[in-house]
This record gives sequence, structure tokens and C-alpha cells, in this order.
Amino acid sequence: MSFALSTTVDLDFDRTVAALREALAAQGFGILTEVDLSGTLKAKLDVDVPRQLLLGACNPSFAHRALQVEEHVGLLLPCSLTVTAVADGTTRVEAMEPQAMVQLTGNAALQPVADEVRDRLAAVLTVLPTTAGRTV
Amino acid sequence: MSFALSTTVDLDFDRTVAALREALAAQGFGILTEVDLSGTLKAKLDVDVPRQLLLGACNPSFAHRALQVEEHVGLLLPCSLTVTAVADGTTRVEAMEPQAMVQLTGNAALQPVADEVRDRLAAVLTVLPTTAGRTV
Repeated sequence: MSFALSTTVDLDFDRTVAALREALAAQGFGILTEVDLSGTLKAKLDVDVPRQLLLGACNPSFAHRALQVEEHVGLLLPCSLTVTAVADGTTRVEAMEPQAMVQLTGNAALQPVADEVRDRLAAVLTVLPTTAGRTV
Repeated sequence: MSFALSTTVDLDFDRTVAALREALAAQGFGILTEVDLSGTLKAKLDVDVPRQLLLGACNPSFAHRALQVEEHVGLLLPCSLTVTAVADGTTRVEAMEPQAMVQLTGNAALQPVADEVRDRLAAVLTVLPTTAGRTV
């Protein structure tokens, strides 16, 4: 099992971020954290890597349900997504695979909420335009 | 293997957060994200859970090394830590087990940097005062 749901989007980086924000909101996810990874590495180490934004998305109802069955689940929250520049007009979006979280915790009680979160994240990635294909 | 390094700290919540910030800085980790999980759940769902803060910590050198050997590692960054109120004067601190990240990616090339990050996070948890013990 891959630990990432992934799609290659036919939009430039900034338009992908905007489309992803909309798609997450439509599925009930708020964005709680944002890290400009490439900017941080440039500022701290003066190294150049492809543009990459790390987003932490949270649907409070799912987070609460997960917390009720797995006390350590906070380490896996909020849900991680990445946006990475691939080329002009091509951007990769990935989300942490919720099934990998179940596997990591070894707690089968997380399965129902992981299934639902997975459906929502797959729906988010599926609305982003792609001709290169996706793995969701 | 547990997916968490964990310690039970003999300090109240706020003093634990302050001590953790200091300990992270001493090991070269900046805090890039903070989520007041309990506050978010109260505000969004009007539910009460024990106080819990989610921190995203990043050591830029390690992040860059990880990114050079594993293109999907951004999903596991920044390093997740949680601070959770247990009782008056007792607070749990946990960090994502870097070995679990290697396992999740299935990429053995991450092992050297995961080993070093693990040593640093274990050092962070080890300086926090405990009589209840830790699993690092």
C-alpha cells in the first residue's frame, strides 16, 4: 500500500493551491496549518528545491471521532497534504493515505473513520483537473 | 513498534509546552505549526476533550536530507508532536517515531536521517522531568 493518495494536476502551482483549497472546503476540511517548505529551505539553508507547500487539513467531526477511539491519533492530525511544482502548468498534489494511519496505529477501531476520510480526500483529488492520471 | 515516542511530564500543561519549546530549540528544531486541537473541537463542535496542542517541528537540514532521498516525505513533515493534559501537574508529550516513517515509506534510504532525528527527539523528551517514565 502506498502511503500517499496522489494526482498530477494540469494547472500551475498557484492555481492548484487555489483549486485545492476550494475542494477541501467543499468536503468539510478547514486548513489549519501551512508550511512553505521550499521557502523555508531557501531561507534557512540557501538551497533550491521545487516549490512545495505543506497543508494541514482538518474536518473537526472526523478528528473528534478518531480521538475517541485512538488516544495517540493527534500525532497524525491534521491530515497532511502536499502541493509540489513539477513543471510549468503541472503540479503534484498528494494526501496522506488514511489507511496507512490505521496500519501505523495498529488500531482497527480507526477503520470506519479512516474509510470516510479516505473517500473525502479521494473526492478532493478527483475534482482537480488531470490528464496524467491519479492514484486515489 | 510503537508509532510514538512518549513521556509523561511532571509539569502542568503550560509549563510543559514552554519546556518543550526550549528543548526542541536546543536540538535545532523550529516550530512551524501549532494547532490547539481541544480549542478547535470546542469552537467547532462544542465538545470537551483534554487540552491538546499539536506542534509541527522542523530541523531544516534533516528535512532537506530526507527530501533528497524520498520525494513523498513532505507528507510526513514537519515532525509531529503532541502535548496532552493528563491531570493537574501531569502532561503527556509524544513525538512521531521516525522509524515508523521509514516503515511507512518503505524507503531504506531514509534510515540514516531517521536515526539521527530519532536521537534528537529522544533527547528532547529526555530532558522533560518525569517520575512516571518514558518510552523513547
